[in-house]
Amino acid sequence: MRALVTGGAGFIGSHLCDRLTGQGAEIWCIDNLYLGRRRNVEHLKTSNGFHFVELDVLDAKKLDALFTDAKFDTVFHLAANSDIAAGVADPVLDLRLNQLTTLSVLEAMRKHGVQRLFFAGTSAVFGETSAVLHEDFGPLQPISFYGASKLAAEAYVSTYANLFGLSAVVLRFPNVVGERATHGVIYDFLRKLEKNPAVLDVLGDGNQTKPYLYVADLIDAILVAWEKSSGALSVYHAAGIGNTSVREIAEIVVAAAGRPDTAIRFGAGDRGWPGDVPNFRYDISRLQALGWQPRRHSTEAVGLAVKRIRANGF
Amino acid sequence: MRALVTGGAGFIGSHLCDRLTGQGAEIWCIDNLYLGRRRNVEHLKTSNGFHFVELDVLDAKKLDALFTDAKFDTVFHLAANSDIAAGVADPVLDLRLNQLTTLSVLEAMRKHGVQRLFFAGTSAVFGETSAVLHEDFGPLQPISFYGASKLAAEAYVSTYANLFGLSAVVLRFPNVVGERATHGVIYDFLRKLEKNPAVLDVLGDGNQTKPYLYVADLIDAILVAWEKSSGALSVYHAAGIGNTSVREIAEIVVAAAGRPDTAIRFGAGDRGWPGDVPNFRYDISRLQALGWQPRRHSTEAVGLAVKRIRANGF
Repeated sequence: MRALVTGGAGFIGSHLCDRLTGQGAEIWCIDNLYLGRRRNVEHLKTSNGFHFVELDVLDAKKLDALFTDAKFDTVFHLAANSDIAAGVADPVLDLRLNQLTTLSVLEAMRKHGVQRLFFAGTSAVFGETSAVLHEDFGPLQPISFYGASKLAAEAYVSTYANLFGLSAVVLRFPNVVGERATHGVIYDFLRKLEKNPAVLDVLGDGNQTKPYLYVADLIDAILVAWEKSSGALSVYHAAGIGNTSVREIAEIVVAAAGRPDTAIRFGAGDRGWPGDVPNFRYDISRLQALGWQPRRHSTEAVGLAVKRIRANGF
Repeated sequence: MRALVTGGAGFIGSHLCDRLTGQGAEIWCIDNLYLGRRRNVEHLKTSNGFHFVELDVLDAKKLDALFTDAKFDTVFHLAANSDIAAGVADPVLDLRLNQLTTLSVLEAMRKHGVQRLFFAGTSAVFGETSAVLHEDFGPLQPISFYGASKLAAEAYVSTYANLFGLSAVVLRFPNVVGERATHGVIYDFLRKLEKNPAVLDVLGDGNQTKPYLYVADLIDAILVAWEKSSGALSVYHAAGIGNTSVREIAEIVVAAAGRPDTAIRFGAGDRGWPGDVPNFRYDISRLQALGWQPRRHSTEAVGLAVKRIRANGF
């Protein structure tokens, strides 16, 4: 495999680079270092077949030159603004970083005849619903620019796959946790606790409940989906077993930090910020049928992530 | 009502301006005249309450000034590249004209506190499926840039409605026919026949079968959907009764042109161009429940449109 990993120095991208490099693949990891960090892939520098290039996917000219040089057979497109709350403040940020990056990658693939694409989707495309979400669920009515831009990107992936013979895999990520995360609830709580160990302020009433997946399990899911799929467009959902509430996460973080005396102070309202979907549930049977299984309960994933993030630094 | 109609000099937009002006509304019709034509609204010039402004929706500064001056309470956003075949040649054309125009309108509405939006959606958001399409159908996997950009626009309408308190109505148009059309199968056949009355070349094998709706019936549907809806986001489908094949349309056009000796020559393949969805069926019960009924069979709509387009000039 000669693969491009966009956003490869980011949270999930760097774990994917670890795995693919470990399997002996030739990997070009590109990142504009907006959310990604050099230190996430520093340890891969000396690995055979690993290449890091600081490059913005929106720079079509440089991307084109890299496609010419590297002769990819596969693209894992993970570059994105994954910070939903940040996106709400600016409608164009997510449009650029989530949708137009995807269009840039698709155009380069079309031009250079690269046929296999993995795209990082999200549960946020669905918006707010109490349904158990299988991959064909409708309607899709996002409530954040993150969700809207990722749905828009999916629509373009679908179109390129159909018009230009791409074989695309979309895996809609759940809440993913683990070391190297750049933001998110665990990261947020740990930083707050460091600043003020006496009180932990929680955004919203703490009842937001979602399925969390440990990043190593997500990488398994990415590779199973990628290896077992063919055809124009395959869409999958992955999640940990069960769900975890924000209240539980606060308690896990406080316990792990050795601060049982910390007062957990809940906010008002059912969500952390405008655009946050407070609850969702995934049907993951399609990916399970291909042999993937989540190895951890959602709450176990959170516990492991807290431990690793604390050990790794945040 | 003080309403902005974007794309108001276009095919459907100009019919909407006719109707709204006739009802005594104050209407600002804007159009960049990319597909729209001055002559489509020339007859409204002297009507009370009708204003035409040549303006590109993507010109945010001019749009902002117009919002300041006119103090709209409603926006009917119909500006778009409605020519699917043209869009396939250029991935950015539909992105700009369908999605970014919508974002421009949404931003102006948010900034100026305008709360009611009508958005012109399309069956093309679904891609290719044999299902009878109700409004909540999934998955949505478009196969044209037209469909992708309209789905992207819908995603942003959904997000603005939820984040900023808009009340939005999305009506997903079927194939709409009638006088002032700027392109489409009838228009195409009539022009071909004028050039060469001996042979009518049909794109595809003629078996493409879709529900056609006469434009006056669509305007009824727009107004019923708009009047009877409240809440953040309401989505509807409208279509004529039954379906019509391209073969039937060719026969109707040839008969109407008084050219029964014309040889109709069919092409190869099941569709007219890449990105064309050859068949679709709509469930229209949601809009029927609000009191709207299609008044004509699809094939009757085609016959009436042929007659009116010939009378009106093409």
